[in-house]
Amino acid sequence: MENNFYYSELFEIYKELLTAKQKEIFEMHLNLDLSLSEIAEEKGITRQNVSDTIKNVKAKLLEYESVLNTKEKTDKIYSVMEKIKDREIFNELKEIIEK
Amino acid sequence: MENNFYYSELFEIYKELLTAKQKEIFEMHLNLDLSLSEIAEEKGITRQNVSDTIKNVKAKLLEYESVLNTKEKTDKIYSVMEKIKDREIFNELKEIIEK
Repeated sequence: MENNFYYSELFEIYKELLTAKQKEIFEMHLNLDLSLSEIAEEKGITRQNVSDTIKNVKAKLLEYESVLNTKEKTDKIYSVMEKIKDREIFNELKEIIEK
Repeated sequence: MENNFYYSELFEIYKELLTAKQKEIFEMHLNLDLSLSEIAEEKGITRQNVSDTIKNVKAKLLEYESVLNTKEKTDKIYSVMEKIKDREIFNELKEIIEK
């Protein structure tokens, strides 16, 4: 089972591939740290619906990463970048990756 | 209008996000260079259906790129990488990006 920090990183990368509803609920869950009941009340849907949406989003995020590997590649690039002595080159790469 | 080389590059990055049918038809169109009629005959579907599928795939690829920017970022990383003098670091980065 992956932890919330991992999902939070995947969410930052892939969130624009989700629906507006998935994005909003996952944001409330992970970034605002609201409970399932609080989200359900806020959105006027059932607690079960919130729970299913979060489960679906997690599955989607893992699926995107398993296919595109963007997080894995970015992590690897960072670890190689640490060996770059030229700060200018390092910073240019960092800016591209983090944009 | 983007050219086929551009779509071919996007396809390599995002093809696993497409359905099996979309992938197969777009591959026949772009990489095997078959005509719409040839693909239609091969797949037992109409020429219109082939044409629509190709159009949909192109729209999907542009959408993925507009959201994830993987090709744009990769191109930019390559152009910065040219300034790296250490071949070992250069090759390590290249391997990560091209995998």
